Amino acid sequence: MPPLQHVNIAVIGTGGVGSVFVSQLAWLAKTSTATKPSLCYIAMIDKALYNSNYSEIEIDTAIATLESKGTMPPSIPEIIEYLTGAPHRVILVDNTSAGNLAEAYPAFLKRGISIVTPNKKGFSGSYKLWEDIFNSAKAGGTLVFYESSVGAGMPIISTAKELVATGDEITRIEGIFSGTMSYLFNTFAPTSGSSGNWSQIVKKTKELGYTEPDPRDDLNGLDVARKMTILGRLAGLPIESPTAFPVQSLIPKELEGAINGHEFLQKLDQFDDQMKSHKIAAEKEGKVVRFVGSIDVASQKVKVGLEFFDSTHVMATLKGSDNIISFYTKRYGELPLTIRGAGAGGDVTAMGVTGDLLKVIAQLR
Amino acid sequence: MPPLQHVNIAVIGTGGVGSVFVSQLAWLAKTSTATKPSLCYIAMIDKALYNSNYSEIEIDTAIATLESKGTMPPSIPEIIEYLTGAPHRVILVDNTSAGNLAEAYPAFLKRGISIVTPNKKGFSGSYKLWEDIFNSAKAGGTLVFYESSVGAGMPIISTAKELVATGDEITRIEGIFSGTMSYLFNTFAPTSGSSGNWSQIVKKTKELGYTEPDPRDDLNGLDVARKMTILGRLAGLPIESPTAFPVQSLIPKELEGAINGHEFLQKLDQFDDQMKSHKIAAEKEGKVVRFVGSIDVASQKVKVGLEFFDSTHVMATLKGSDNIISFYTKRYGELPLTIRGAGAGGDVTAMGVTGDLLKVIAQLR
Repeated sequence: MPPLQHVNIAVIGTGGVGSVFVSQLAWLAKTSTATKPSLCYIAMIDKALYNSNYSEIEIDTAIATLESKGTMPPSIPEIIEYLTGAPHRVILVDNTSAGNLAEAYPAFLKRGISIVTPNKKGFSGSYKLWEDIFNSAKAGGTLVFYESSVGAGMPIISTAKELVATGDEITRIEGIFSGTMSYLFNTFAPTSGSSGNWSQIVKKTKELGYTEPDPRDDLNGLDVARKMTILGRLAGLPIESPTAFPVQSLIPKELEGAINGHEFLQKLDQFDDQMKSHKIAAEKEGKVVRFVGSIDVASQKVKVGLEFFDSTHVMATLKGSDNIISFYTKRYGELPLTIRGAGAGGDVTAMGVTGDLLKVIAQLR
Repeated sequence: MPPLQHVNIAVIGTGGVGSVFVSQLAWLAKTSTATKPSLCYIAMIDKALYNSNYSEIEIDTAIATLESKGTMPPSIPEIIEYLTGAPHRVILVDNTSAGNLAEAYPAFLKRGISIVTPNKKGFSGSYKLWEDIFNSAKAGGTLVFYESSVGAGMPIISTAKELVATGDEITRIEGIFSGTMSYLFNTFAPTSGSSGNWSQIVKKTKELGYTEPDPRDDLNGLDVARKMTILGRLAGLPIESPTAFPVQSLIPKELEGAINGHEFLQKLDQFDDQMKSHKIAAEKEGKVVRFVGSIDVASQKVKVGLEFFDSTHVMATLKGSDNIISFYTKRYGELPLTIRGAGAGGDVTAMGVTGDLLKVIAQLR
């Protein structure tokens, strides 16, 4: 029998994804015969829970204990110092979307702390940070996995990495990378039947909880641009940042100055004609409009924005808030490798994080 | 820097998949900074090449050398003895479809030899062999990976494993699992336009090289049944064998006694009406006929055979010889996680083997 792998786990972030991850970790600790994960640090935005002797925090009740007994979180350098002294190999699970934590990944990785995260910021920030992260992991003998940064729990990052690692060449990647955008356009421009005004659909989608608290954070296209940055880099393009290529924002120019999401939503109906014109232009060609991202590797062209598709095209036939991602490669030829399914939601996003955790545990030496 | 992983590789089988795998291995040995694979054994059906001192066989010229200088292959117990003495951890890459080699997997795994293979036989034989294989791997501290046994290089096996390992529940799996069947039915019953007679299409598909040498080996449904056996077991069903559930054969009863594939093909046109009747029955419902496999976990029902689908259904809209596999799970809810793309072909099948090899190297201790 291979020995049980003892690891220390540090979790930062206990929101929608983080709280589900902790419950999956509790399940894993109870059922796994291959690993013994021991939680030694857990923190939310303003509270942290840890023991100076690294004694195990009970996972089942960790979030409740954190909320009731948590103290002021230490600084990032203090967290690194603390984790460096842990008795086993340490894996940091960053379930936040914090930029400052992502910028500290190289410091963690260099000091022997591996990282698992759905946080896009580290991999879609500056190209220098991207290089720092992977060089630091090499230097520190550590691993960094980020499956859920694109397509939640679906095998997108792992597939891109494996295509490249086995010597295939990715020639093109295209897809619908935002669950929110998918839902909005599947509703606004269905392949059959009628729909409502754009502003009404945005409001309803927000009420369903399918948008960010401020829907402009979805509509500005930056979320998709970050995902394209990550996939483009994996395909071999040294993309400088998520603003280094054309990204079409669906925020009307006139509303860019709106003070908050509330004001934005109140005034959005004045600009319904803008989105309607795109929809009608598509219909004139017998097509539907969708919000897509694409990477053409040979021409080094990356773009994010509206495109028209035949109503029988896979891009047009998505349902609900599904994502779809197609990899065109040298080996796959004309017909791409395509993966489709839920690309958002706490359960499936946390599952991608838990899957990464298992991979890191299996590979840590 | 993590240390370079030295491993010894033994390759059995140098046919369509095996020869491409060897060229991918040669590329890997030249480019990888993480692993130093050293080929210490290579064999085809009637020849083997190896050095008693385990000195490295040059990968680039391995197959040519094997063909010119190979000697009578040793017996399986002799191969195991030889590999057990190798200086590094050993990975056996079985690129055959041999049943006797698959039955010896437990003996290899127990003796410290890990296995990577696209060979379905070991995982779709008796349930006892399935259990023996994984128990032996545990006992021997070895790994066994078989991604390319279903869907070639696509992440099907790894996805099924990860869903289960992270605590999701697979409720249903369905899809088109045979590139040959996909091509036959996409041609015979296209979603638009007309087609020819079944027997003509089978003959043409064989001429294109898309069928087994004897097309009955595709048409009897056993290839798909083996894949369903593997996926069903991964989903938690103790399926006894690939003949333990209903499998619809497309070989007309009257031709079951045909002496060989040639006689079978010569007489197939006498039975074109049988397949035509399925096609017409589907058309009467406004549908098309496809050859699918499905697993319903709750009812423990597995089946392989003809089903009808709306012409806009994803199962109906496949092109070429693409496979499609949908996982319905508790976490993914009503809309499945679906993977689509080439499920056959030397390049993509070998890529799945190479990908597995990299995973085993990364995890071997």
